[in-house]
Amino acid sequence: MSITGKQLIAGEWKAGNADSFRAVNPATGESLEPEFIGADEQQVAEAVAAASACAAEFANTAPSVRAEFLNRCADEIMALGDELLERVTAETGYPRARAEGERGRTCGQLKLFAEWIVSGEYLDARIDTALPDRQPLPRPDLRSFNQALGPVAVFGASNFPLAFSVAGGDTASAFAAGCPVVVKGHNSHPGTSELVARAVGRAVEKSGLPGGVFSLILGAGSRVGAELVKAPGIKAVGFTGSFTGGTALFKLANERLEPIPVFAEMGSVNPVVLLPQALENSAETIAEGFITSLNMGTGQFCVNPGLVLSVEGEGLDRFTAAAGEALSKVGAGVMLNKNTLSGYRSGLAHLRDQAGVEQLAQGQATEESAGEDGGFTCQAGLFTVSGAEFLANPALQEEVFGPVSLVVKCRDREELLAVVGSLKGQLTGTLQCADGELDSYGDLLQQLRQRVGRIVVNGFPTGVEVCHAMMHGGPFPAATDSRFTSVGTMAIARFVRPICFQNYPENLLPDALKNSNPLGLSRLVNGRKTSDGIG
Amino acid sequence: MSITGKQLIAGEWKAGNADSFRAVNPATGESLEPEFIGADEQQVAEAVAAASACAAEFANTAPSVRAEFLNRCADEIMALGDELLERVTAETGYPRARAEGERGRTCGQLKLFAEWIVSGEYLDARIDTALPDRQPLPRPDLRSFNQALGPVAVFGASNFPLAFSVAGGDTASAFAAGCPVVVKGHNSHPGTSELVARAVGRAVEKSGLPGGVFSLILGAGSRVGAELVKAPGIKAVGFTGSFTGGTALFKLANERLEPIPVFAEMGSVNPVVLLPQALENSAETIAEGFITSLNMGTGQFCVNPGLVLSVEGEGLDRFTAAAGEALSKVGAGVMLNKNTLSGYRSGLAHLRDQAGVEQLAQGQATEESAGEDGGFTCQAGLFTVSGAEFLANPALQEEVFGPVSLVVKCRDREELLAVVGSLKGQLTGTLQCADGELDSYGDLLQQLRQRVGRIVVNGFPTGVEVCHAMMHGGPFPAATDSRFTSVGTMAIARFVRPICFQNYPENLLPDALKNSNPLGLSRLVNGRKTSDGIG
Repeated sequence: MSITGKQLIAGEWKAGNADSFRAVNPATGESLEPEFIGADEQQVAEAVAAASACAAEFANTAPSVRAEFLNRCADEIMALGDELLERVTAETGYPRARAEGERGRTCGQLKLFAEWIVSGEYLDARIDTALPDRQPLPRPDLRSFNQALGPVAVFGASNFPLAFSVAGGDTASAFAAGCPVVVKGHNSHPGTSELVARAVGRAVEKSGLPGGVFSLILGAGSRVGAELVKAPGIKAVGFTGSFTGGTALFKLANERLEPIPVFAEMGSVNPVVLLPQALENSAETIAEGFITSLNMGTGQFCVNPGLVLSVEGEGLDRFTAAAGEALSKVGAGVMLNKNTLSGYRSGLAHLRDQAGVEQLAQGQATEESAGEDGGFTCQAGLFTVSGAEFLANPALQEEVFGPVSLVVKCRDREELLAVVGSLKGQLTGTLQCADGELDSYGDLLQQLRQRVGRIVVNGFPTGVEVCHAMMHGGPFPAATDSRFTSVGTMAIARFVRPICFQNYPENLLPDALKNSNPLGLSRLVNGRKTSDGIG
Repeated sequence: MSITGKQLIAGEWKAGNADSFRAVNPATGESLEPEFIGADEQQVAEAVAAASACAAEFANTAPSVRAEFLNRCADEIMALGDELLERVTAETGYPRARAEGERGRTCGQLKLFAEWIVSGEYLDARIDTALPDRQPLPRPDLRSFNQALGPVAVFGASNFPLAFSVAGGDTASAFAAGCPVVVKGHNSHPGTSELVARAVGRAVEKSGLPGGVFSLILGAGSRVGAELVKAPGIKAVGFTGSFTGGTALFKLANERLEPIPVFAEMGSVNPVVLLPQALENSAETIAEGFITSLNMGTGQFCVNPGLVLSVEGEGLDRFTAAAGEALSKVGAGVMLNKNTLSGYRSGLAHLRDQAGVEQLAQGQATEESAGEDGGFTCQAGLFTVSGAEFLANPALQEEVFGPVSLVVKCRDREELLAVVGSLKGQLTGTLQCADGELDSYGDLLQQLRQRVGRIVVNGFPTGVEVCHAMMHGGPFPAATDSRFTSVGTMAIARFVRPICFQNYPENLLPDALKNSNPLGLSRLVNGRKTSDGIG
């Protein structure tokens, strides 16, 4: 079945009633079939109403039911086969191996959530039993657990058409929590979005769940997304993308009559600190790893290493020489779409204009090549600036989305510490260090810990593992709420809230809180963790 | 040592540089000694700067160190002795027994947090060990735990001068998390605030902690509070109070360059649903319990039962007759301050003006008595309205802070369900029901579950137990973030964020994440809970 250009609204495929648009192959600049027609306000409302109507039913499904549903989503995505991989490649310019890898990540993520919710840990079931004889007042029986928040709006990200899109981490964690999802598909990959929505729709049907559990709506421009966030039925928002986009949604959500949480992961410059002994030992190896990390996915990762911090000296000179040489061999990359390319170009121009910034190297592809084949190709870039200039100019902290990095050469260790202390919130902070070298950098580590979501030692920030301990988020402006991750099992916490039952009849309690502990959970009973039943 | 009128800024008692004010005895209307002088902008900045300066140090203290500190806070509060109880009584009009009870609650709360953090559960320590041979890519070693968010601004509430004030639940949970606290003391009880701050200050000193860990600032009007929330060093806000106050702080916090979370618990009308069989069995007993709950603390509780929902009939008639009679015997209550009294009076007047609202009964005290002794005395009130009028008029959902409740008489069960379905977010929802009666009210329970933080069966909403399973919060407008409680051990979650360490040197890891598990925590290791060490 070919791609139709329709959207999925609560189990039914419907032609949109608003503006039309097409995907573009970023490698060639060609428009792709078919035409997509966006949702009008009525259709957005329809999707949200259907989600609201089934929110309680979905919230009350057993974790095992949702686990089966999540596994089915993964199976149905795999069943899309080559058509999906080809469409991803056509809509993103990513090589097929990347599409395949991302598909694996997406399905693995769905399955990890399936496994995790069955353990019931995320429910945080707590029971404080009654103390009828307590003086001066008896204590009632109190039991709490995490229940689903309600319908969640998810915004697909351009740079991860599968893993951070229609059935990506936001959707998977919302489903895991028991929240219906309305996805606003990204305009850059509407065909991929339709295919994945088809898979999720099939999984909804096969699982016997109400159609309102999942909708995909589309729309050129920002209107549809704004309408979605303003819809009173929506109770939370998941977003991965630009600072501008994330903060705009955050503002809209806070202006609602009922404000709702927005989990916007907005990227950052992901500082990489190179310590002197590490450079002395292996400046060239570090440079090689760095350039590889910088150019992954044509630099279009939110954890792209956009900033290198170090102290002037022979070691740093060796690093910049090696990094510059490696970068100059990097071929032209294809960017995701016209906007991303123009943003990259204007970001580069802005960076070049800043006082004290010098270009160290640039990638191979000339901009003429873009003209030749019509694709959105770009050149990688490496720049340097002094620590003093960096400290004096906040504009140098702005992310330029793409394969570019700025090396800040600090005068001494003091200045390096000041530079780290001046950084805004970041997703990650990386340290390259020799054995034992970090031991004497407690002050720097402390500064970093206050500013980042994840500290990477002797690696690079790219590569965000989907696991239990992952924290993909960070202090503002990396994300709108530093207390939550958008990757890994902790991501479920965004979409639940505790509810407490006082003196509630045993037969009406949720299974998680029943005396007999039928789900076999580890629960906090009178302050002690136990899998035992009550009484 | 008598009360000085000064404020505690990072370990030093300083006279304020701004506007002066006095506490007023609400039972008599008399001004109390001494004069308090509020902080100016510079002093607010000073308190926040000191908090920021020691935030990392305090965050890194062992849970056992903070536990000792919390216990010391409790001990020092007890050591204030009668002076504290007398001042509370003078500043609030509460009877001494209430002051004593609240002191017990406050100290018990500090001690519960002390005990809880030593268990380390709140740290949510997670370890995913390295998989160097994994294909296609190795997995690095990833470890995460919850670290303190940074300095927290706490706003004291007028109605709980101890338990929700200077060393109340917000402060206790922030300290427990490892966050320095700057309290804006409530103008209604500045003397109580100073005394408690003295106790906390002594505990800081005896624990050898930096003075910046705790400050108390004062100020008439809203200027000082606004400056505090806007101070860049503040990373979160805890507030209990009115909808107007809470949403104003929420707005300020979101307008900052770096938005921060505001946990505002803003009260609600706490619907009490009376089911027919319960009324048939015991309308009079329920009425008695209800009137007692309504008048606790002169109705100045955020969980005051301001709304009664039921279906017309003989049972409800018996209830209203008994409740009306009981209420008419309720003596004059003393309200906390002039503003609370005038808010109550205008709220009552507004309620009386609404279409279809009839007064069923009023309490004994006449308003003239207020004139006699100059105190802020008020009369309790009970009103009725039909379900149809209630559904048609959202103004009837507005909280009137004080001893007043509105009985909504629904035509039938259908209308009762519609009324529950129309409710805004609430802290609590209560059901009075006969044995087994709830079994046939699944639809109503479901509606309630989507709207409240706590469901109470055959009790009343007043009485918020400080324990592990308590959820004191709820969907907006009960609170600004439904995912968090301000009472009970889950309250710590507001003030921490996860941080992830990737390939971090073992010797530099926080104790909670070290291989040997020196704190003996139950940790999530590769998806399985265990207290075992690694390797």
